[in-house]
Amino acid sequence: MIIVMKPQATKENIEHIVSIIQSNGLEPHLSDGAQVTIIGVIGDKTRLINQNLEIAEGVDHIVSVTESYKLANKKFHPEKSIVKVGNTSIGGSEFVIMSGPCAVENEEQVLQTAKAIKESGAQILRGGAYKPRTSPYSFQGLEEDGLRLMKEAREATGLAVVCEVTSLAAIEAAVKYVDMIQIGARNMQNFYLLKEAGKTGLPILLKRGLSATVDEWLNAAEYVMAEGNPNVVLCERGIRTFETATRNTLDISSIPVVREKSHLPIVVDPSHASGVRAYVAPLAKSAVAAGADGLMIETHPCPEKALYDGPQSLTFKLFDKLCKELRPYIQLAGKHF
Amino acid sequence: MIIVMKPQATKENIEHIVSIIQSNGLEPHLSDGAQVTIIGVIGDKTRLINQNLEIAEGVDHIVSVTESYKLANKKFHPEKSIVKVGNTSIGGSEFVIMSGPCAVENEEQVLQTAKAIKESGAQILRGGAYKPRTSPYSFQGLEEDGLRLMKEAREATGLAVVCEVTSLAAIEAAVKYVDMIQIGARNMQNFYLLKEAGKTGLPILLKRGLSATVDEWLNAAEYVMAEGNPNVVLCERGIRTFETATRNTLDISSIPVVREKSHLPIVVDPSHASGVRAYVAPLAKSAVAAGADGLMIETHPCPEKALYDGPQSLTFKLFDKLCKELRPYIQLAGKHF
Amino acid sequence: MIIVMKPQATKENIEHIVSIIQSNGLEPHLSDGAQVTIIGVIGDKTRLINQNLEIAEGVDHIVSVTESYKLANKKFHPEKSIVKVGNTSIGGSEFVIMSGPCAVENEEQVLQTAKAIKESGAQILRGGAYKPRTSPYSFQGLEEDGLRLMKEAREATGLAVVCEVTSLAAIEAAVKYVDMIQIGARNMQNFYLLKEAGKTGLPILLKRGLSATVDEWLNAAEYVMAEGNPNVVLCERGIRTFETATRNTLDISSIPVVREKSHLPIVVDPSHASGVRAYVAPLAKSAVAAGADGLMIETHPCPEKALYDGPQSLTFKLFDKLCKELRPYIQLAGKHF
Amino acid sequence: MIIVMKPQATKENIEHIVSIIQSNGLEPHLSDGAQVTIIGVIGDKTRLINQNLEIAEGVDHIVSVTESYKLANKKFHPEKSIVKVGNTSIGGSEFVIMSGPCAVENEEQVLQTAKAIKESGAQILRGGAYKPRTSPYSFQGLEEDGLRLMKEAREATGLAVVCEVTSLAAIEAAVKYVDMIQIGARNMQNFYLLKEAGKTGLPILLKRGLSATVDEWLNAAEYVMAEGNPNVVLCERGIRTFETATRNTLDISSIPVVREKSHLPIVVDPSHASGVRAYVAPLAKSAVAAGADGLMIETHPCPEKALYDGPQSLTFKLFDKLCKELRPYIQLAGKHF
Repeated sequence: MIIVMKPQATKENIEHIVSIIQSNGLEPHLSDGAQVTIIGVIGDKTRLINQNLEIAEGVDHIVSVTESYKLANKKFHPEKSIVKVGNTSIGGSEFVIMSGPCAVENEEQVLQTAKAIKESGAQILRGGAYKPRTSPYSFQGLEEDGLRLMKEAREATGLAVVCEVTSLAAIEAAVKYVDMIQIGARNMQNFYLLKEAGKTGLPILLKRGLSATVDEWLNAAEYVMAEGNPNVVLCERGIRTFETATRNTLDISSIPVVREKSHLPIVVDPSHASGVRAYVAPLAKSAVAAGADGLMIETHPCPEKALYDGPQSLTFKLFDKLCKELRPYIQLAGKHF
Repeated sequence: MIIVMKPQATKENIEHIVSIIQSNGLEPHLSDGAQVTIIGVIGDKTRLINQNLEIAEGVDHIVSVTESYKLANKKFHPEKSIVKVGNTSIGGSEFVIMSGPCAVENEEQVLQTAKAIKESGAQILRGGAYKPRTSPYSFQGLEEDGLRLMKEAREATGLAVVCEVTSLAAIEAAVKYVDMIQIGARNMQNFYLLKEAGKTGLPILLKRGLSATVDEWLNAAEYVMAEGNPNVVLCERGIRTFETATRNTLDISSIPVVREKSHLPIVVDPSHASGVRAYVAPLAKSAVAAGADGLMIETHPCPEKALYDGPQSLTFKLFDKLCKELRPYIQLAGKHF
Repeated sequence: MIIVMKPQATKENIEHIVSIIQSNGLEPHLSDGAQVTIIGVIGDKTRLINQNLEIAEGVDHIVSVTESYKLANKKFHPEKSIVKVGNTSIGGSEFVIMSGPCAVENEEQVLQTAKAIKESGAQILRGGAYKPRTSPYSFQGLEEDGLRLMKEAREATGLAVVCEVTSLAAIEAAVKYVDMIQIGARNMQNFYLLKEAGKTGLPILLKRGLSATVDEWLNAAEYVMAEGNPNVVLCERGIRTFETATRNTLDISSIPVVREKSHLPIVVDPSHASGVRAYVAPLAKSAVAAGADGLMIETHPCPEKALYDGPQSLTFKLFDKLCKELRPYIQLAGKHF
Repeated sequence: MIIVMKPQATKENIEHIVSIIQSNGLEPHLSDGAQVTIIGVIGDKTRLINQNLEIAEGVDHIVSVTESYKLANKKFHPEKSIVKVGNTSIGGSEFVIMSGPCAVENEEQVLQTAKAIKESGAQILRGGAYKPRTSPYSFQGLEEDGLRLMKEAREATGLAVVCEVTSLAAIEAAVKYVDMIQIGARNMQNFYLLKEAGKTGLPILLKRGLSATVDEWLNAAEYVMAEGNPNVVLCERGIRTFETATRNTLDISSIPVVREKSHLPIVVDPSHASGVRAYVAPLAKSAVAAGADGLMIETHPCPEKALYDGPQSLTFKLFDKLCKELRPYIQLAGKHF
């Protein structure tokens, strides 16, 4: 933590800061510059968190030197994490593809989809039972009935299943049916939900918020991990920018950035990132090439009739073709599928 | 709803779309252009919501003509809404200032603040008991004890009180103590929370999400209103942009935009929008001049010692000065305070 | 300048950095923290600009402590600048309104507009003769003929005139006709143009780029000032964000931010910021209240027939009404008009 | 073009619009909806460009149906363009890598770099002689001397060379030395420069502006092409967002978006997009996988001593390693290198 003083800061201003630092059991390091004085603080800076030094007289601004997340931080856990989900693992040498409809609609749709994606090699079935929708008049999901259908599909195929939760009630229901809990983009900073999801001990798929920085995302992961649950998988699904040709802007750089800052696995959702079916395949390939640990791709038996997000869903045929095309890229990236 | 066909769309493509529209009991209107054909759809377009026409063959894109929110829409409720909170009302001729600390810390702090802001003319006391914080290691609020202190302050001063909620449990506690429930920016699209807050019937202060469009914000209000609760007050608190000189970018235009699109009252929070104490006063004045119905301003007995957000909090003296300076602007804007 | 080392930086890494600093005649200040070592650099950091210390082994990142602009920096020129334009001055006690059509179309339009805005109190006539347009097929301006018409209007009314330039040729023409040169948003980082404009010695109206930070904007001003021309007036005209209800997002906070960082005057253009006629008046008032030194507002004899940007132009009647409404706000803000 | 009327639009309002459309020789198509009337316009909508229908009474808003760029539009030129540069071609089956230093510094640096990158397989040498820099006090380039060194390197190696221009004077110098002219991100909407560059007939490398939409970028290409120069290559180099972990956010989706909308080749610059050396390789691979026609990658004999952008430059050894790693990805993408 570094405190940069104003050019006109007085000797008294500086001494005042120094005394606050010392009275909190920390050691100040002064550097008198030609233009300004800077004060480095050595030791556990959390002791100063509530001192509001930013507004002490003579202070220009304060610079943070280290990240606030610890459990998710690669600096303190250099080895990459591997998260077990059902019979598969994310973050190791296996490349994991999760697929399925945006929303669970009925038994036939789910079973048909589960069988089809399994055939193509996918390891995890996704399907929304609780749908966060912009308008209250849109379809909101089948809730517990949807979870039940997902479990049926798991029993029929052996695939692991992942479902989004949006409330404590949904979490309490989900633990009975699913292998992995998804926290959606809109709830990435619903800290209450993160804690409750963390307490279940189940693997958590944590989607990045629409305007969350990578640091905020890792802090959200920290909320889950601070509950004693290290099984977090990050999912990049596009951020909000001024560009309107795609629904969101896939931040492909977030893959190497997360690799640099954290030991957690990261997967990419090109379906939600683009919102356009024709862009899913090129973006999926780019994610593999950039080093992702897996993908989440929407499929539907009949996208034209999907209750939700049909325009970005792949047919089974397109999905199968994509999986085949991805294999050599996955191999090049040093993984298997 | 307008369907724009591709230049190379065939007669069959067009007929297919037309038949879908008709089979849903709607009326298509074709316009054959030199380059493309467009098809207007007359009637209740929600019937087509799950037809995914975007991906039907020959379709280029679809243009929405009307908004998805109805209860919050000025077109259907041209008269401006006035929301009663305790003994005051937001949206009418009275200009309402809410003030108080970001986080409730202890009895003395709350009571002292309540008395001071009342003295300056504020009508509503704010104070956070449940704090959504980026890091799990930051102070998370006094929870129900905090709500209790807020109620004490209300009894001592007659001010109405508003507190943020972050979970169903928090809502269940809050209804026992507060006059108005706040939904924070990070929970603006926590639709579950919006519905539960709506069910309480209490006035709701709905902060705009960090990267929410005005349309999404009004759809969030629609979630509350669809539960039979018309008492929503919008609060602009800055959006996320590339600019780093301020914590967020106050979207001052959102005031006239909301006026154009909705009948709901709108207030502005210049403290969170800027994150810098010195910018609070100019931004507060600009909000009054742009037509806001009120302000939410952070104050603290001793900002240097605040547990949270001290750098943007005003001292009582600065707050009193600001209230005095605001009076003539409020008068010019046709309101009283 | 502060160099933050990685936790695993070796003693050799640190000594290497220290030696680079010393060999450039600067003084390093080491602080050994529990987690990391930081090295402060005292003295003229520009000597290190090309050392690329960021990529030296063991370095985590580098933090800049001071701004790169000097002449535009309030720290070195605490007194506010006043820029003389024709018979008026921007930045002093007079509030200056610039108005006129987006594009100069013909003599009648310009003269009629000049007379009307003068009648309402405006001091400067604006009008585009060189129009930067997104599409090459849109109207590109009357060029020198347009400048000539602006000069005519000046002679007829005594108003000062300001015109945008987009090339060296345009600058060479403009100096013969105008009182102030405008650099448009799209050219804010056309550094060649900035230098050439600076050389003319004429007052420069520097619009903020669509995605420029305030710091980049002040650095652009520095380009003009480094040519010996201190007469720069900044113009906030909205930045690009995800919001689509307005053409751009007026960054109202930029007014107090510029006040804090620079001595240069700042005016606001609510017409381009919003792109919507109905929003011009509330935004104009908010700019006055936030402390702007002036406004730039589009007017047109017949906005329905304007060749460019008609939807945001005011009629003379609306402009006159707005000027009247602004007067008491201007007075409150301590200026006269 | 579709005109959406307000719910309260009168019969007279609608007839007024209809008559304007007809008097411009176009055909209106009315659709009376339950809530609103919409009017489709058939024919050459450019005739209405200056009618400002948006502000005619009763009009709610106007929707554009077709793009304003024609020559760059895939709809009118379905076949992909191939642009010849020196002995290589961009957009065909050859994958093209451009490399070199951000700024030309001296003969040794340029020659050494040219030889090294040729050895690794690169086909085009890049190097800046005119540098647009945020601060006027930073190194601004060697100008014509720099161009001369680039030509020398071309003669020594047979590589084609590309240099950025920032003014008409720079263009006039460049045509004597280079094979391809680069328009930088900050000048993407310097329409004057685009036209002058177009007139040279040389291939143009058009970088995307920091906050330009894909549509604006294609309109910028249209400026060049409207001068009779079809040889435009687009270069994605990151857009500006709120994320700060990378210098810009590489918009990887722009590759499939451009493929969908235009026939022009597109290359990617991962060096400027990320600003971090360690991210260049994963982003380069992702660009190949997403279907790019080439890459632009910064290299420097000694990045630690580079005058500019050293932190993102690769050493020759790293560049060679990357080229080797890219080969199988390029092959998978159906190209050769």
